[in-house]
Amino acid sequence: MIRRLQRRLGVLSPPPPAGIGDDAALLPVRRGKTTLWSTDLLLEEVHFRRKRSPARLLGRKALAVNLSDLAAMGAVSRSFLLSLGLPPRLPLRWFDAFVAGLGESARKSGVVCVGGDTSAAAEHIVIGVTVSGQGCPGKLLRRDQARPGDGIWVSGPLGASALGLKLLQSGWSLEGRTATRRKASTPEERRYAGRALRAHLDPQPPLLLGPWLAGQSVSRAAMDLSDGLSIDLSRLCEASGVGARIDSDRIPLDPAVGFWSSRLGLDPLELGTHGGEDYGLLFTVPAARESRMGRLPGSLGVRPICIGRVESGSGLWLRTSGQRPQALRPGSFEHFPRPGGRTR
Amino acid sequence: MIRRLQRRLGVLSPPPPAGIGDDAALLPVRRGKTTLWSTDLLLEEVHFRRKRSPARLLGRKALAVNLSDLAAMGAVSRSFLLSLGLPPRLPLRWFDAFVAGLGESARKSGVVCVGGDTSAAAEHIVIGVTVSGQGCPGKLLRRDQARPGDGIWVSGPLGASALGLKLLQSGWSLEGRTATRRKASTPEERRYAGRALRAHLDPQPPLLLGPWLAGQSVSRAAMDLSDGLSIDLSRLCEASGVGARIDSDRIPLDPAVGFWSSRLGLDPLELGTHGGEDYGLLFTVPAARESRMGRLPGSLGVRPICIGRVESGSGLWLRTSGQRPQALRPGSFEHFPRPGGRTR
Repeated sequence: MIRRLQRRLGVLSPPPPAGIGDDAALLPVRRGKTTLWSTDLLLEEVHFRRKRSPARLLGRKALAVNLSDLAAMGAVSRSFLLSLGLPPRLPLRWFDAFVAGLGESARKSGVVCVGGDTSAAAEHIVIGVTVSGQGCPGKLLRRDQARPGDGIWVSGPLGASALGLKLLQSGWSLEGRTATRRKASTPEERRYAGRALRAHLDPQPPLLLGPWLAGQSVSRAAMDLSDGLSIDLSRLCEASGVGARIDSDRIPLDPAVGFWSSRLGLDPLELGTHGGEDYGLLFTVPAARESRMGRLPGSLGVRPICIGRVESGSGLWLRTSGQRPQALRPGSFEHFPRPGGRTR
Repeated sequence: MIRRLQRRLGVLSPPPPAGIGDDAALLPVRRGKTTLWSTDLLLEEVHFRRKRSPARLLGRKALAVNLSDLAAMGAVSRSFLLSLGLPPRLPLRWFDAFVAGLGESARKSGVVCVGGDTSAAAEHIVIGVTVSGQGCPGKLLRRDQARPGDGIWVSGPLGASALGLKLLQSGWSLEGRTATRRKASTPEERRYAGRALRAHLDPQPPLLLGPWLAGQSVSRAAMDLSDGLSIDLSRLCEASGVGARIDSDRIPLDPAVGFWSSRLGLDPLELGTHGGEDYGLLFTVPAARESRMGRLPGSLGVRPICIGRVESGSGLWLRTSGQRPQALRPGSFEHFPRPGGRTR
């Protein structure tokens, strides 16, 4: 297994001084830089189902979600450790496809696998990825640096991943890059389903945005949107000791959300506000630096949107034009609050 | 869960610049040092059984086996990331005891938890620990640096952990530091069973030996004994492109192995040669530096023993006085080779 990994992953870049196969991996550090690391578990039956997640895309995602964590600190990832627990009777082709996807994600991002741990597992696949990278000390983006008056920004459209999960659960699947289901479907349905399924199964975090924001000192506070805007924003605010006010009209919704929500009887704003796993970037920009956002290079491939503002005090508020601001509860959005209880 | 972790683990030492709770952890690096990292999975039903492994000892072991990896490179661990996947209905007291044990191991070794990932798990507990530490570049102990003529050393007695596993499987258990079983037992049985059970459930790797060997340039090749002498030595030799000859009379056996092997019908030499999870250190010392082993400080708490010598070529040989050398196969020791097959 380790030799298969070495063949597929160990040759992605010049080998590190001690690479895969020794007791520990070495991390080269550049002068004046700080080393960062982050780790994430992906567990079968919790984070993915074997039948619904193509192994190759799962390999890409396993690395991407970790790269997203470091990018959200303003750091650039350099290397990673891979831990795999594989149950008996898992076909070797699953492993090969998973590692192929991991390799695609690694090559695209310029990171190299420097070690890890492979093991049997009792029943369910266990995937652990630990990434390490570097950033400039003093410029890193932290959760506790949001200040009253800062603008609140997101890197792009929200809700597509949560929609993709619902489509997976309702019989859609992804074959190659094409969405299919047993029931008849229109080309338009397939196009928008594919968009949502890819967002969920093959997320593409904006890995260049965080380092740019940090390097240009445009932002000091950020985190990646893994659990949904309402939960992640509440964490950012709690860590910074501030509150926030969001304009519901400015929350950017993915076109697939617009297309599918009415057809599935879903609330599009709820998908955008509470849907998880978009892996966009949530960040704050002090008012005095807002003009610098206009200089964002097109090469970063994102068009961030300001959706609200940090306030002193605590609590999250959602403002809809013509209505009184409503309390935005993490993970439990009350779109039409009524006396006596929640409507959904 | 993260707050419980922060309370128990986050205050062990001065907090890092960005600690538990942010997207990534920062690693301070000292000038002239190299950063190393290593990761290990501990999976329920593969590496441990919930009923047999007290949670507190499992916490100690989860960290210890990772610290052992870095020590085997000659490095000193500084910080770790903890990944936990916890199944529903796992009592909170399991978590608290596990973290308490982890904290004991961390305090003893001067390492601090700087982050990680907590998650639900479907059925079985998933534990992932990633440690990071520092060593002197150019002096690190590697698997590929053993040379013909080097002495082969182990840090101490072998076989107790494998014996402990057998005792666990035959009804013995550890309560506090005392071994018990339902069947009547003598004080001597309990004493030696306790010794073996503690070796298996609560291993104490010689964390100071590797850094001393590296710092004094006594050794250039080492690895920790996690899978058993025969397997680990074969890996060291394969990585270095050499062979080895071991004297069976010099393989140090734990006293508990001597006591229990006849009572359980086990071959003591087989336990010492193939038994895994001792977490001692296997290392080589060039002949010209052997005298430096006499200057090993008593404060390291180990008395290493030379058990053989590295040879050119390949293959492992076991020499017993008055017999012809036998081939030592990784994990499948043929103690009394007979024509036509293995005897055990």
